[in-house]
Amino acid sequence: MTSPGGPSLRGPEGENRVLDPAVARIVEAGGPHVPPLLARVEERLVEVAGSYGEVLAEHATATISAGGKRLRPLLVLLAAGPDAPEEPLLRAAASVELVHAATLVHDDVLDDASLRRGRPTVYATAGRDMATATGDLLFSRAFAQLVQNESVDQVRALSRASSALARGELVQREDAWRVVPVERYLLRCELKTARLFEAACELGESVAGAPPSLGAFGRRVGLAFQILDDVLDVSGPAERTGKHRGTDLLDGTVTLPFILADLGIDPRSVDTRERAEEVCDAIAATGALDESRARALEYVAAAKDDLPDLPQRRALELVADSVVERYS
Amino acid sequence: MTSPGGPSLRGPEGENRVLDPAVARIVEAGGPHVPPLLARVEERLVEVAGSYGEVLAEHATATISAGGKRLRPLLVLLAAGPDAPEEPLLRAAASVELVHAATLVHDDVLDDASLRRGRPTVYATAGRDMATATGDLLFSRAFAQLVQNESVDQVRALSRASSALARGELVQREDAWRVVPVERYLLRCELKTARLFEAACELGESVAGAPPSLGAFGRRVGLAFQILDDVLDVSGPAERTGKHRGTDLLDGTVTLPFILADLGIDPRSVDTRERAEEVCDAIAATGALDESRARALEYVAAAKDDLPDLPQRRALELVADSVVERYS
Repeated sequence: MTSPGGPSLRGPEGENRVLDPAVARIVEAGGPHVPPLLARVEERLVEVAGSYGEVLAEHATATISAGGKRLRPLLVLLAAGPDAPEEPLLRAAASVELVHAATLVHDDVLDDASLRRGRPTVYATAGRDMATATGDLLFSRAFAQLVQNESVDQVRALSRASSALARGELVQREDAWRVVPVERYLLRCELKTARLFEAACELGESVAGAPPSLGAFGRRVGLAFQILDDVLDVSGPAERTGKHRGTDLLDGTVTLPFILADLGIDPRSVDTRERAEEVCDAIAATGALDESRARALEYVAAAKDDLPDLPQRRALELVADSVVERYS
Repeated sequence: MTSPGGPSLRGPEGENRVLDPAVARIVEAGGPHVPPLLARVEERLVEVAGSYGEVLAEHATATISAGGKRLRPLLVLLAAGPDAPEEPLLRAAASVELVHAATLVHDDVLDDASLRRGRPTVYATAGRDMATATGDLLFSRAFAQLVQNESVDQVRALSRASSALARGELVQREDAWRVVPVERYLLRCELKTARLFEAACELGESVAGAPPSLGAFGRRVGLAFQILDDVLDVSGPAERTGKHRGTDLLDGTVTLPFILADLGIDPRSVDTRERAEEVCDAIAATGALDESRARALEYVAAAKDDLPDLPQRRALELVADSVVERYS
C-alpha cells in the first residue's frame, strides 16, 4: 500500500496521487480495505464525470480532478466499516463528493473565483453559464448514483444535506457584509458544511446496515472544519492557504474571528487587500483567533468523546484530528 | 368548480387564480377529483417555498407565485388517474414543478433575464448569487418532497429528468451562436423539456401503481411544446408572448425555424433588436415556421395516437392539444 513517495491513489488522469500525510494516516488506520476502496471512488467519480456528454466530461472532470482531500467520501467508507457491500458503498461515497463538487462549482460562480486549489475554475475557463449548468449536472448525477442503492433513507439523507447546503449559501448571501451573532454564524457552518459531513457518516452506516450512531460525530467534525477554515483565512500565511489573508472579508463573508474580535469595524469599509490584511492583524491581536480555534477544538473533542466503540474508532479519531492538524 | 370568471384555483397568495381556458378544459375533462388536487398542489408549493427559512420564502415564493400553467403537475395528476393516494400524488406533482421552477430561476441567471411572466425575476430583485442559491434550494426541496413517497423508482425518474435538464442547459450553452443539425436541436428539446414531461407521466403512474404506459406521450408532448415555444419566439407577435421577436437568437439560442430556414446568416451577426426582427421576417418568408409547426404537430398526433385507452384519455388529449392551441 505504501510507495517510496508515501501512500498514493491513482488520480482521475491516471496519475499517482500522493495522499496528504494526514489522509494517508487515516487511510492506514482504516484498515486494508480502505485504500483500494478510495481508489475506486476516484475511478467512479471520473466515470460519472466522463459519461454524460463531452461538455460535462470536460468541465466536470476538471472539477473532480482538482482533487481535494476526499474527506467526505473517506467518512462514508470509514463509517461503513470493513464489511459493507462494495458497489453501494462506492455509490454513496461518490454521491457525497459529487454534491460537494457541485457546490464548489457554484460557489466559484458566486465568488467570482478564477482559481481553486491552484487550478482554473470551470467558471474561469467556461464562464458562469457553463459553471452553473455543470454544478446542476454534478448535483443531479449525485442523486442518480445514490438512487441505484435503492434506499429511500439514503436519498433522504443526501437530499437533506443538499437542501442544507443551498440554504447555507442563501443565508451566507443574506448575511453578507453584516456582523451577525455567533449562533447565526454557527447555523451557517452547520448548513454549509456540517450537514454533508453528517450525511456522509449516515450514508456509510446505512450502506453497512449498521444502526445510526455516527451522524453527530460527522456534524461536529464538519463544524470544526468550517470554523478552522475561517480561522485560516484570517491567520494565513498566504503561502499555506494559496490565497491572501482576509479574502472572506473582502467577499463580504464575516466569520467567527471577526465576530469575536468585536473591533467595531464596518465590514463594508474593508475594501482593499491592504486594509483586509490590517484587519486580520487587528483580529489576531484581540485573541479572537485563539478563541475561535478553541471553539473548534471543543467540537473535535466532543466528536471524539462520543464516538462509539467501533473497530473504525481509531481511524475516525484521526479524521477529527486531521481537521485540526491543518492549522497546527 | 366553476365561478363567474371561469374555473379558478386559489393562488399562492390566497387570491383566486382564474385558470387559463385551455387548462380549465383539461381540468374539467380530468374529472371532479382534479380541481381540488390541483389547488392542493398550489398549497403544497407555497408551503415548501415558505417553510425553509425566510430568504427562501421570499424568493422562492415569488418564483412559485409567478405561476405558469402548471402543465407538469397537471400531467402527474392526470397520469395517475382518479384512484391514486392523494398525499403521494401531491408530493410527486409538487416535486416536478419545483424542479421546473429551479430551472427557471437558473435560466434567468444565465439569460440575464429581468422579467418572467411579467414579474421581476429573483435574479433581478436579489442578484445572481441569491438566484443561484434559490434555484439550488428549490431543486433540493423537490427531492426532499419526493423521497417521502419512499419509492426509489420515483426518485430515479426525477433524478434522470433533472440530469437531463442540466445537460440540456450545457448543450444549449455549447451550441450557442451555432447552426446545429436538426437532430442536435431535437436532442436539446428532449433534454431541456421532454424528459421532465415524461417524468411527470411516469411519476403519476407510479404513484397510482399503474403499469408505465404514458412516458412516451409525455415526451412527445414535451418535444412539441418546446418546438412551438421556439416558433413563437420567431413568429410573435410581441403582445402575445410578452417579449420581442427573435429574443432567443439575440441570446445565441439557434432554434428549429432558423435552422430550417437555412438563410446562410451567421447567428453572431444578429446583434440588435431591429436585425433580429428582420431575420424573423426572413425566416417566416421561407416557410420554415410552418415546417417547424408541422413537425410539432406530428409529435402531438403521435402522442395522441399512441395513448392507451384509459379513463383519463380525453383529458390527456386535451393536454396535447393545449400545447398547439397557444399558437393557433
